[in-house]
Amino acid sequence: MRDIQHKLSVARGEEPAELLFKNARLVNVLSGEIHETNVAVDDGRVVGFGDYEAKQIIDIGGAYLAPSLIDGHFHVESAMVTIPEFARAVVPHGTGAMVIDPHEYANVLGMDGIRYVLESSKNLPIDFFIMLPSCVPATHLETAGARFTADDLAFMMSDDRIAGVAELMNYPGVFLGHESELAKIDAGHGKVIDGHAPGLRGKNLNAYALAGVRSDHESTELDEAREKLRLGMHLLVREGSTERNLEQIIALVTPQNSANCSFATDDKLPGDLVNEGHIDHSIRKAIAFGVPPVTAIQMGTINTARYYRLKNQGAIAPRYWADFVVVDDLAEFKVRRVYKKGALVAADGNYLPTAGPATDQPRSTMNLSYRAPADFEVTFPRNGTAKEIRVIEIVPHQIVTKEVFAAPKLADGKIVSDPERDILKLVVVERHRATGNVGVGFVRGFGLKRGALGSTVAHDAHNVVVVGVSDADIVAAIQALEEMRGGQVAVADGKTEASLPLPIAGLVSDQPLEDVIQKIAELKVAATRLGSTLDAPFMSLSFLSLSPIPALKLTDQGLVDAVNLKLTSLIAD
Amino acid sequence: MRDIQHKLSVARGEEPAELLFKNARLVNVLSGEIHETNVAVDDGRVVGFGDYEAKQIIDIGGAYLAPSLIDGHFHVESAMVTIPEFARAVVPHGTGAMVIDPHEYANVLGMDGIRYVLESSKNLPIDFFIMLPSCVPATHLETAGARFTADDLAFMMSDDRIAGVAELMNYPGVFLGHESELAKIDAGHGKVIDGHAPGLRGKNLNAYALAGVRSDHESTELDEAREKLRLGMHLLVREGSTERNLEQIIALVTPQNSANCSFATDDKLPGDLVNEGHIDHSIRKAIAFGVPPVTAIQMGTINTARYYRLKNQGAIAPRYWADFVVVDDLAEFKVRRVYKKGALVAADGNYLPTAGPATDQPRSTMNLSYRAPADFEVTFPRNGTAKEIRVIEIVPHQIVTKEVFAAPKLADGKIVSDPERDILKLVVVERHRATGNVGVGFVRGFGLKRGALGSTVAHDAHNVVVVGVSDADIVAAIQALEEMRGGQVAVADGKTEASLPLPIAGLVSDQPLEDVIQKIAELKVAATRLGSTLDAPFMSLSFLSLSPIPALKLTDQGLVDAVNLKLTSLIAD
Repeated sequence: MRDIQHKLSVARGEEPAELLFKNARLVNVLSGEIHETNVAVDDGRVVGFGDYEAKQIIDIGGAYLAPSLIDGHFHVESAMVTIPEFARAVVPHGTGAMVIDPHEYANVLGMDGIRYVLESSKNLPIDFFIMLPSCVPATHLETAGARFTADDLAFMMSDDRIAGVAELMNYPGVFLGHESELAKIDAGHGKVIDGHAPGLRGKNLNAYALAGVRSDHESTELDEAREKLRLGMHLLVREGSTERNLEQIIALVTPQNSANCSFATDDKLPGDLVNEGHIDHSIRKAIAFGVPPVTAIQMGTINTARYYRLKNQGAIAPRYWADFVVVDDLAEFKVRRVYKKGALVAADGNYLPTAGPATDQPRSTMNLSYRAPADFEVTFPRNGTAKEIRVIEIVPHQIVTKEVFAAPKLADGKIVSDPERDILKLVVVERHRATGNVGVGFVRGFGLKRGALGSTVAHDAHNVVVVGVSDADIVAAIQALEEMRGGQVAVADGKTEASLPLPIAGLVSDQPLEDVIQKIAELKVAATRLGSTLDAPFMSLSFLSLSPIPALKLTDQGLVDAVNLKLTSLIAD
Repeated sequence: MRDIQHKLSVARGEEPAELLFKNARLVNVLSGEIHETNVAVDDGRVVGFGDYEAKQIIDIGGAYLAPSLIDGHFHVESAMVTIPEFARAVVPHGTGAMVIDPHEYANVLGMDGIRYVLESSKNLPIDFFIMLPSCVPATHLETAGARFTADDLAFMMSDDRIAGVAELMNYPGVFLGHESELAKIDAGHGKVIDGHAPGLRGKNLNAYALAGVRSDHESTELDEAREKLRLGMHLLVREGSTERNLEQIIALVTPQNSANCSFATDDKLPGDLVNEGHIDHSIRKAIAFGVPPVTAIQMGTINTARYYRLKNQGAIAPRYWADFVVVDDLAEFKVRRVYKKGALVAADGNYLPTAGPATDQPRSTMNLSYRAPADFEVTFPRNGTAKEIRVIEIVPHQIVTKEVFAAPKLADGKIVSDPERDILKLVVVERHRATGNVGVGFVRGFGLKRGALGSTVAHDAHNVVVVGVSDADIVAAIQALEEMRGGQVAVADGKTEASLPLPIAGLVSDQPLEDVIQKIAELKVAATRLGSTLDAPFMSLSFLSLSPIPALKLTDQGLVDAVNLKLTSLIAD
């Protein structure tokens, strides 16, 4: 700690503190109580409680002073803005530290993605800690921009801001003892090993915990969450844009186990972060469901800091960073002011810091090779016995899909989109290494009557995915995405109706938060105008390539039977 | 973890477990509840909960199965037996792990003492973790057998069984920012930094916490403990042989802060450990004072493991060591059976393991140089103005003393013991390096009418300390201690009335636990026979040399004004 002698003399009361936060009702997450005190701050850290001389007095006027909030698990790419812009969205909601898993950046940019995240998350009013993505690529059935082995994880692990190994999504690989997955756990030696085991129960869950996995954020049911908590897995209660589990599992939390419970958002869109809130929203909701306010605040602060071993984070006490939020009513938990290392960084919902120099953007990640429209055409066998094709059916609000069968619509012997029956062509084009890989399938659920929707956000390999009524508009969408260096687009009759350029890894905008929120809304409007009946058509689109999630998916390698994790054919035999 | 593949297959239920603990009411300190389950164990670890095939079934019959207990701070030398014998005392009480501060071994033997402790604490049914003594010697006013600098601590820190830096007793040095003390904190980087700050409050306590100290076990009052807890110091509630703070401070513990509270014993005599108990006693007492049983058990298990970062200790869950206690009644908390890594190690108060090979004893530590009785004689100045001498007055049950003044009794111009007024000669002889240092003073409070009491347990430098009615018996006591290679002795008329040889560092016996308990009792009886009116005359004797504790002490360097930390004169001016 720099200048410890000076700070000690301030603590002893021999020299004035820089700041004194006066008349605070301190939410003390360490003693589990609220008590009135003054908090002296010097050089960005709390130095003591009590009556101190100070160069500047900040009168809290009897309001509550709580530690800044911490998100225990977040994919920062889901906000679709750069990390400095993300800070603009959440700092006014009281966020002071984040544990992020840059899984999407890693899939596209590999180690360069991790370095970009480390670099672009510096010198902000949020401290970012990084869990190293453990499943890049998601499976061997999709072509990502990078591959992380246990050796790669070990190579990056020693950085002080690396908190451990991110969610081990290949949970069968873990509980079955695959050496590659156990080696990733070993690579996190001495740091945190996060889990991801939706619905996993019983003996296989025992094995998953035994292997060394010590958290989970995927519980959707109370009994599932209870079983995981009993097995010693830190419970990250998730409340994101689409995955919202708090209501189902919060009844599990008691003061006697809450030290093992935290809040996380996982994925949240920028508009939701701005309008609904971040961890402050989770705290409000938990309190509304009966969690005592101090317990809820502990879940959003010290519990997360302890689990991830974030030093001097998550509490207000000597040596801890002076990261505070001011709230007037505990149950309401509306953050009025936010301090980072003693400096006011947000007030009444407004973000105060001025932008620092931008981090250099990573290289372009749009490296496509395809022949249009030949690569997107599928001929139906004339002389075979086949009568049907496999069709991906969207399940609204879920990332799972169904596999259904339907007779194809043919034109000149080729299978084409059939908007009448809502069976539309879906195309995935590999974009990382110009392999020329193109997958073609059909999907039901979008409801488009004309045009095409395209995205380079397409979990987890983030290749180009396009759904369209005509091959011409599919090609137009791909070309628009290439011109934007990645993004999301709605086209009709060869023209762009709405677009969100995402030139950073094809995942993230280089524009201000407000513009991105606006463009996301415009895309939704355009998709609806083209006939889309989905609440979130681009989110649905982005999950159609995620090969480990049942039942039927499409990657650049072709149609994937995601139940048995193997390629399958479009033509049903 | 060795043989992980086999254990994973056991967890998955594909191969039988070694052991199944059936029909348990599991005290789950992670989910903070009690639930019925079966616990499968293989290769010393818990592998899962549920219905498992097993080679051996252990039917718990509906009793409670809780994690083995952990003592958060203990000086193992205070039990006066070797570590294997200490295990015999506490394992039947449910102790499964210990965090020890071998402060006395370090003062006598330096690094060799730490190595001896590491070596002699292996392969026992208790896992020992070691905090490195941070104040060796206690002050510059006593001559110890070793000196530990921050460099020495850093040198030893990397061992996996070293948990951090032990209690920073030089708390003024810390809050005043002495570089030597701050460097010791730095030496513990990434590990735990324990505190020791009796009565420290307010701004200086703020500074002590700011410096990086993160625990305290010295609180004797509720308000003091509350202040420390609020500042983020882990609260070790102490309940030892003489220092008993639980009753005063336990009301502070709530489920919302108990994660920051643990139990410790600090110093406890072997008879008290055997008869009263160890951490089980603390749990019983806490429950009796109203702490919910699960919270009390958390304080004696997982909270301590978490604070000291003891891996896979303190809970029953997959990957954790299968260290269990069986109790029939939670509030009574009488430990019936104890398991270590799945093996039964105590039943109905009986210790079951057979002794392993003894660790080689360290070198002799009795290196004295003195001229008897000349070195022990003090001439009273005939022609000066002085009329009185400084006398150390014992405060029963406390380690502080008072400074009083009295006219000396003279014989042939020399100051001699005066049993009539209970002013007895006290002698300290340096025993580590044969420096020839001898300190002579006078003490009130023992009440001896004849003979002498001597000890080589004499905090913290552990030189030879003897109180006696005559110089002849003082010399006889010293000679007896030399012959025993250290120990405690009561002599009268030149003959040994009772003795406890402590040949290991002059601190610890090489004999069985029962013999040591017996000899301690015999010494007490002998001292009483010689006139002692104290409850614990040898304990009182052992603290008369502890130079940092007020008010007047005697070391090998002479009388110490322990308030101002400087030497003072026997003759009052």
